Amino acid sequence: MQFFDLSQPLFDDCPNCHVHPAVRLPITADHPTDGWRMEEFHMASHTGTHLDAPLHKIAGGKSIDQMPLESFCGKCRILDLTHLPAAHPIGPAELQGALAGEIVLLNTSWGHRRAKTDEWIHRSPYLAPDGAQWIVDHGIRAVGIDHFSIGGTGPDNTPTHEILLGNGVWVIEELCFRDGWREFAEGAEFMALPLLLPGFSGSPSRAVLFKP
Amino acid sequence: MQFFDLSQPLFDDCPNCHVHPAVRLPITADHPTDGWRMEEFHMASHTGTHLDAPLHKIAGGKSIDQMPLESFCGKCRILDLTHLPAAHPIGPAELQGALAGEIVLLNTSWGHRRAKTDEWIHRSPYLAPDGAQWIVDHGIRAVGIDHFSIGGTGPDNTPTHEILLGNGVWVIEELCFRDGWREFAEGAEFMALPLLLPGFSGSPSRAVLFKP
Repeated sequence: MQFFDLSQPLFDDCPNCHVHPAVRLPITADHPTDGWRMEEFHMASHTGTHLDAPLHKIAGGKSIDQMPLESFCGKCRILDLTHLPAAHPIGPAELQGALAGEIVLLNTSWGHRRAKTDEWIHRSPYLAPDGAQWIVDHGIRAVGIDHFSIGGTGPDNTPTHEILLGNGVWVIEELCFRDGWREFAEGAEFMALPLLLPGFSGSPSRAVLFKP
Repeated sequence: MQFFDLSQPLFDDCPNCHVHPAVRLPITADHPTDGWRMEEFHMASHTGTHLDAPLHKIAGGKSIDQMPLESFCGKCRILDLTHLPAAHPIGPAELQGALAGEIVLLNTSWGHRRAKTDEWIHRSPYLAPDGAQWIVDHGIRAVGIDHFSIGGTGPDNTPTHEILLGNGVWVIEELCFRDGWREFAEGAEFMALPLLLPGFSGSPSRAVLFKP
């Protein structure tokens, strides 16, 4: 198996969703004093590259462990939306060509601007509610984006999440499309397995393209 | 792709290594009050099903992000050691048959006894230093076990870890071999990708058997 990484790194105080606590990943034991290295996680479950299960926005929705692992692996289509201006609402026009059963990944280039700035937090292109409805209506399996929120941070965020998650379309956020993704993607599939977290609304994940 | 899960669940106050802080996974926002569900992680990096990189025990050793993703995926051999008594040191005799390049998984049945008991913590069968040396000498790629410590909790633990990690053999701990693993394993491979954690000595992982 060959892999191409689509994940953002997790590190102490890394950029994250502004309404979550700051990410704390301290080293708690180290060489040579302790004879080993150990770290701790102190962060929200929706940090870095992560999956949203329906429960994240839908009361009584499925938690991440209630979805078969096969859900998170399959054919994908990466849409090149790197030409879109800041804060652009992605609608049906930008989604044309995606097919039923695919995992659709929105490459806005915003993964390369990841920083604790107002621009990165609040001005990303995002999936608008009419785009989310198009995804549902066309039988798309899942949708991902290279920003921490598929729906941005404005008033469209809640309806976009609710349309997707309320219709069983899972979401992956904080992807990063590094140079070379296009060459690797030819014949590749997508995979992003969650940790085993019973009852959780989502999970950090290592998102990859892979080839047998 | 089809999957068979070999992971232990992470949950609040779940059994873990006795020298690590207790696992805290609180729900920090919930329906209907907040309109969404969110959780937090407060735990050591080597919690639940997790990978050990050389840096965990070797000063200056590779961190988990310095190992290619391809390292963590490939042919495996699951050794049925469920007949072994408690606290049995696993040596060359129990490892016979494993081949160079394989990921060798030690099924001691201890994954089914996971509980905060002295028995689970301190009396697991474990890989002895002579077993670790056999793994290295035979070109085994990696070794896993269904307990939080490949080397147990006694004086053999440090040398066992150092022999493996000092020779580039990565380790996966806290697997669980549920009913059905044997039937699925026929023709399957193993995969356990780490999260993207620059500089970390290890990572939680979703460990699976898979078939194309």
